[in-house]
Amino acid sequence: MRQSQLFTKTLKNDPEGEETKNAKLLIRGGFMSKTSAGVYTILPLGLRVLEHINRIIREEMNAIDGEELIMPALIDRKYWEKSGRWETDIIYRTGKQKAGKTEHNFSTEGGSASGGEYGLGWTHEEVITSIARQFIQSYKDLPKAVYQIQSKFRAEVRAQGGLLRGREFLMKDLYSFHADVEDLNRYYEVVKQAYVKIFERLSLPVLVAEASGGAFTKEYTHEFQVVNPAGEDTVHYCMKCGFAQNREIFDAKRHGDCSGKLAEARAIEVGNIFKLGTRFSESFELLYTNAAGKRAPVIMGSYGIGPTRILGTLVEVFSDERGILWPEAVAPYLVHLIEITSQKEDHASKADALYATLQKQNIPVLYDDRTGISAGEKFADADLLGIPYRAVVSEKTGEKIEIKKRGERDMKLVSEKELIQLVTGK
Amino acid sequence: MRQSQLFTKTLKNDPEGEETKNAKLLIRGGFMSKTSAGVYTILPLGLRVLEHINRIIREEMNAIDGEELIMPALIDRKYWEKSGRWETDIIYRTGKQKAGKTEHNFSTEGGSASGGEYGLGWTHEEVITSIARQFIQSYKDLPKAVYQIQSKFRAEVRAQGGLLRGREFLMKDLYSFHADVEDLNRYYEVVKQAYVKIFERLSLPVLVAEASGGAFTKEYTHEFQVVNPAGEDTVHYCMKCGFAQNREIFDAKRHGDCSGKLAEARAIEVGNIFKLGTRFSESFELLYTNAAGKRAPVIMGSYGIGPTRILGTLVEVFSDERGILWPEAVAPYLVHLIEITSQKEDHASKADALYATLQKQNIPVLYDDRTGISAGEKFADADLLGIPYRAVVSEKTGEKIEIKKRGERDMKLVSEKELIQLVTGK
Repeated sequence: MRQSQLFTKTLKNDPEGEETKNAKLLIRGGFMSKTSAGVYTILPLGLRVLEHINRIIREEMNAIDGEELIMPALIDRKYWEKSGRWETDIIYRTGKQKAGKTEHNFSTEGGSASGGEYGLGWTHEEVITSIARQFIQSYKDLPKAVYQIQSKFRAEVRAQGGLLRGREFLMKDLYSFHADVEDLNRYYEVVKQAYVKIFERLSLPVLVAEASGGAFTKEYTHEFQVVNPAGEDTVHYCMKCGFAQNREIFDAKRHGDCSGKLAEARAIEVGNIFKLGTRFSESFELLYTNAAGKRAPVIMGSYGIGPTRILGTLVEVFSDERGILWPEAVAPYLVHLIEITSQKEDHASKADALYATLQKQNIPVLYDDRTGISAGEKFADADLLGIPYRAVVSEKTGEKIEIKKRGERDMKLVSEKELIQLVTGK
Repeated sequence: MRQSQLFTKTLKNDPEGEETKNAKLLIRGGFMSKTSAGVYTILPLGLRVLEHINRIIREEMNAIDGEELIMPALIDRKYWEKSGRWETDIIYRTGKQKAGKTEHNFSTEGGSASGGEYGLGWTHEEVITSIARQFIQSYKDLPKAVYQIQSKFRAEVRAQGGLLRGREFLMKDLYSFHADVEDLNRYYEVVKQAYVKIFERLSLPVLVAEASGGAFTKEYTHEFQVVNPAGEDTVHYCMKCGFAQNREIFDAKRHGDCSGKLAEARAIEVGNIFKLGTRFSESFELLYTNAAGKRAPVIMGSYGIGPTRILGTLVEVFSDERGILWPEAVAPYLVHLIEITSQKEDHASKADALYATLQKQNIPVLYDDRTGISAGEKFADADLLGIPYRAVVSEKTGEKIEIKKRGERDMKLVSEKELIQLVTGK
């Protein structure tokens, strides 16, 4: 992509009303734009990162036999009432309005000209359990696992964490269906390992912390926590044995025999896994016939990861005073090619040729071909945008290219061939 | 994919409360599930088709320099008020509710504990124009084009057309920004040609029909119409010269010198393109400095295509009394491999081997490996699902494979090598 053609530009100043590093840097870099508190537009550069995150999640979900689908955001009130989750502070309700009025009196009667009354999906257990009834009748239909990557809505009172706490955000939610608890337990471990792999591929160091089961289960659930001062959670953990617990349930005695010292730290929750048991299969009468011919409720699990929250977390973790440092696996581009024209010489044709070569090699490259911008401004933008490799073509570089990794000080002059080898690792 | 593992099953009976062919066949085939009137879940098989549609649209949008982004569904009331589009029957309003009450009194005051008051995005001119202000200041920043593929919400009074008229549906919306009307006119033609190419790739025969400019413009706009009895629109058109007009503006005199006869028919609108002019750039003060140093409002265009409506339209156009006939470009799988075990012989190992071979060749294949299901039932399911090539392995086929195209009667026995050549066209 030629930077001169890009829809976005970097902004000189920090955006107003944003406290967090992720919101400041993502907005200044042109990765996203704030529409209102807790509601953001993901701009082209940001979408490239988000698509990498989604692809990694998708690959690991498919690898554990998850089938992808897309459920709606408009969920009829009757679904929420069936599970007893209509009356919650977190749900956005809509429908039934009388058009053309600014004061909306919702009626509680069923049906209206414009259709039903809806709660915007903040989670989808109700819908998926209802759908599963159509396809699961026998133990032969089990186990099954389905997931979606889809926008969720939560009426957060405070939405001031940038992408860490949004009112509208992307969620990967996986739901699994089992004939018995043993099979749920088996799959729960499979998902836990898949999550560990996802966060490894995303370069995010996570703690797998025990947490309370909440409304769904009395067993522990697990949260995937990234230790970071921007986090809203507090975890207690041992770096030696991996023991970690959410503050709500922390019990030092459970640390066991390990001699490692316990630490306490703020953390960002980037994923969680729950054993739902029969909480929803009972409400929605999702029953199956077991091998003995008896009817029993299906056993379920529910597993979430927040791709937009991960986008924000990556910036909180991988940034310095000058900008972002994207890990290669999710970087919007691998190479930031910068052309610097001096008074003596125009290097555009040389940089154009290199740009064409890199594109031919399928190396994702952002090409700063802007004219009338100083070298200093181009370098500052490159640091802000955080693309892993900066490749400069200028008077000084002669026939070679000056290459520098973001976050490192060393620069070296390399040939075109060496550049390609370096960035592709081949 | 092994059919025995698939999350969905075909349903024996037509779903209740659905009038249209697209809803009946997509639900019976397990491509989608109805959550409430006009609100559907796209199931794994349906998502595979939808992803093909989206990929084709994306490729053609990228080819005309569209940059992809994602805008939110929660759009603060202040945006709609600025453009004068808050007071419309079609908008779903939310936010400001008092939790825990079933009667919701919305206040008109700004700010509340749970945030603003929102209209769910049914179109995004307001948001994109507002964002463009951050990045477009000079004629040097023009032209630009951005698009998204994202869920839209419309409070439709009647939502009975299956995917043809949903309350929640997918939309590709492209917005373009120009320094002058000439450049808008140039790009409008570029988009028109890109749309023609998209519908050609989707195998959908479209009329490019003139329509009224509506609220935005006094010039004609263009609608992309698929002639089909399930359509809600009426078009007048000439098959000889390509003249087509929406009923609302139809004027036979405009047909001109062509000797072809005019026909009238029902049609499904699958896309539309608008010249917005300065309608939104004036409301949102999206101004730029022209080459002469003067400030002027940016000239805009807006271009929509409905991927979920296309999914429904494909079924209306490509189906018979037994089920769907997917065009190859969008088919969920290319080959439906069916194993039939007779009393004498089990052909599973032979079919398993063929399945492995096809997968190795990257040929998308659905493998009906289900046991205890009759040949007749498997064939009926294959006709319903509408995968282009049916490949049968049975007692009768010996060392060969019986291949049949969906919608054709001819079957022939081919070798594995011939099968691969036939379906890949290589």
